Amino acid sequence: MSRGSGLNMSRRIRRSPYTDRVEQCGVRGFTVVNHMLLPKAFQPSVEDDYWHLREHVQIWDVATQRQVSVSGPDAAQLVQWMTPRDISRARIGQCLYVPLVDEHGGMINDPVLLKLAEDHFWLSIADSDVLLWAKGLALGRGFDVRIEEPDVSPLAIQGPRAEDLMARVFGPAIRDVGFFEFAWFDFLDTRQLIARSGYSKQGGFEIYLQGGHLGSTLWDELWQAGGRFNITPGCPNLIERIEAGLLSYGNEFTLQNNPLECGLAHYCSVDGSVDYIGRDALQEIAQSGVERLMRGVLFDGGPVQTVAAPLPVFVGDQQVGQVTSGIWSPRLQRNVGLSMIERGYWDAGQDIEVRDTAGVDRPGSVSLLPFE
Amino acid sequence: MSRGSGLNMSRRIRRSPYTDRVEQCGVRGFTVVNHMLLPKAFQPSVEDDYWHLREHVQIWDVATQRQVSVSGPDAAQLVQWMTPRDISRARIGQCLYVPLVDEHGGMINDPVLLKLAEDHFWLSIADSDVLLWAKGLALGRGFDVRIEEPDVSPLAIQGPRAEDLMARVFGPAIRDVGFFEFAWFDFLDTRQLIARSGYSKQGGFEIYLQGGHLGSTLWDELWQAGGRFNITPGCPNLIERIEAGLLSYGNEFTLQNNPLECGLAHYCSVDGSVDYIGRDALQEIAQSGVERLMRGVLFDGGPVQTVAAPLPVFVGDQQVGQVTSGIWSPRLQRNVGLSMIERGYWDAGQDIEVRDTAGVDRPGSVSLLPFE
Repeated sequence: MSRGSGLNMSRRIRRSPYTDRVEQCGVRGFTVVNHMLLPKAFQPSVEDDYWHLREHVQIWDVATQRQVSVSGPDAAQLVQWMTPRDISRARIGQCLYVPLVDEHGGMINDPVLLKLAEDHFWLSIADSDVLLWAKGLALGRGFDVRIEEPDVSPLAIQGPRAEDLMARVFGPAIRDVGFFEFAWFDFLDTRQLIARSGYSKQGGFEIYLQGGHLGSTLWDELWQAGGRFNITPGCPNLIERIEAGLLSYGNEFTLQNNPLECGLAHYCSVDGSVDYIGRDALQEIAQSGVERLMRGVLFDGGPVQTVAAPLPVFVGDQQVGQVTSGIWSPRLQRNVGLSMIERGYWDAGQDIEVRDTAGVDRPGSVSLLPFE
Repeated sequence: MSRGSGLNMSRRIRRSPYTDRVEQCGVRGFTVVNHMLLPKAFQPSVEDDYWHLREHVQIWDVATQRQVSVSGPDAAQLVQWMTPRDISRARIGQCLYVPLVDEHGGMINDPVLLKLAEDHFWLSIADSDVLLWAKGLALGRGFDVRIEEPDVSPLAIQGPRAEDLMARVFGPAIRDVGFFEFAWFDFLDTRQLIARSGYSKQGGFEIYLQGGHLGSTLWDELWQAGGRFNITPGCPNLIERIEAGLLSYGNEFTLQNNPLECGLAHYCSVDGSVDYIGRDALQEIAQSGVERLMRGVLFDGGPVQTVAAPLPVFVGDQQVGQVTSGIWSPRLQRNVGLSMIERGYWDAGQDIEVRDTAGVDRPGSVSLLPFE
């Protein structure tokens, strides 16, 4: 199967405020997230893109990270009900990675929560309609909240030179923003929320642009200022994200998975001190122990890249996992992948075999995440 | 802007049970609906596809029409709460087109409802996560229901020869299935639900295949039997669907639109006899009258085809609408489009102008739907 195919456009597949610029930069492919275009390829290769991201700075259209705004008297109560993570001590100006689960503990989404005020939150979401989930819960329970998708379109600046570039455009105060914190900065007579965050481990910021009509202007400002830092257009990089152990909803996990097996136990309160949807289910799973656990796998042979179908992982004749995202790491000079691994086989160093699309079993081993 | 661009594949963009066959048939493009691939182009042109659909028979992978199964003691109560359409007299074996709206009357989706039993329904959905909406409502309100996405993947047989083809594969009893009704038929020791329905006005059936592993076998059986009827692979045809006045969620309307302005008043009870989410809002809108109404527009000049951006519709200097889906009709020898038109301008025959992507205003007129 080819890695890509034609994508037919329509109003239903929304353009972002940055799509014009992305096209002018010669984007070579998109995917669709939250009914919106996400660029997926610019550089000659994913490898070129990877090395550049580790050394310089990139500008990413991540407007598909739509915001679900929850505000009003019952906002905090609703948000806490939606996540196993204890948010009672969250501060205004803080970003929190929050698994959302259903009554069986199944993953609904894994957004970043931004606390704007005691009674106002944004959920910056992965690919599922959290807006409908939140609205349904609120309407059913009779919560006094307002839930909407505001005109907010994140633009990411990622890479080791991100801070220097951002300081040139938004001033030196940007350097004081801590990791997974946000603050407000001036841009063309508007106030814009900027967080130190992003879907890479190379450092950087996300500008939660309010006002889509400013998209091209914001892009151009950053692009111009970025010239001295060797800026290029980019997008979440498959090699970098796998090496960093960053998961993708719909790829590594779905509604059929619970956050504990996803390796997100750290974000789940299971001691009974917090009440949320799926608490009983997660407590039960925590007590009996998970059946499988998110791990990395390293495996031999020539470069692979997963597309639609996961690659089965075996120990002897027994399937113990499936590589849901996998690719050649030019740095480690091996293939790297993400896979949940069955209990009894998930220790680091466990020998496994990954069956490639040609049916060849490739020797490999289980690794902790992130990869070293 | 080009009509298509590369689509990058991943597990998150789900393949359907028919995608293997669709690729073997030389599909030239996809779109993404409900996190799954929907084929969008096979024939040399949309026009070739259009004429073939009107004269012969086609096989369409419409597995993206995912089912939201609602069952249990409170199933009927939940489903009625979700739609303005009175379903109290719905019969088992019936299909009903049901707008789903939120508390403001905004469109959540416009699925086909299949009543399988007094306490079991399927919602065959357009492109939004109705599963999360229904689960949220049920959980919030404490309804005793089970809500899930079953392993059901519709395959459509459309066109004037559809009935003859289906009778060869499933037996003559298929001819007795009425429009928007369904019945159960044998296929390889399984019982399969087949409805007389589909996203065209050329007649046909949809097989709600239960068991994705049977996908290729079902496709092959129909393909072989269809040889004598000049079967081709197809997909919802933009010309045919616009001429027929068939709307597309996300294109013609969104959460920002109410069903009355979408031209769906016929499916909305506003006399107070039925209780549902958004009833007060719809009653108010019905009383004051809608601000705009779904219409067809016919317009001159060379062939156009809408992609992402709607085409503005003017009367003099005033914008009175936007063509959200539009294309050249080889039968009418004019461009046809779907547009909501502002009050005061929606009468059939009203002169309008449609501004194309080059900025040229093209003379045209308002039409009732479907186009003659």
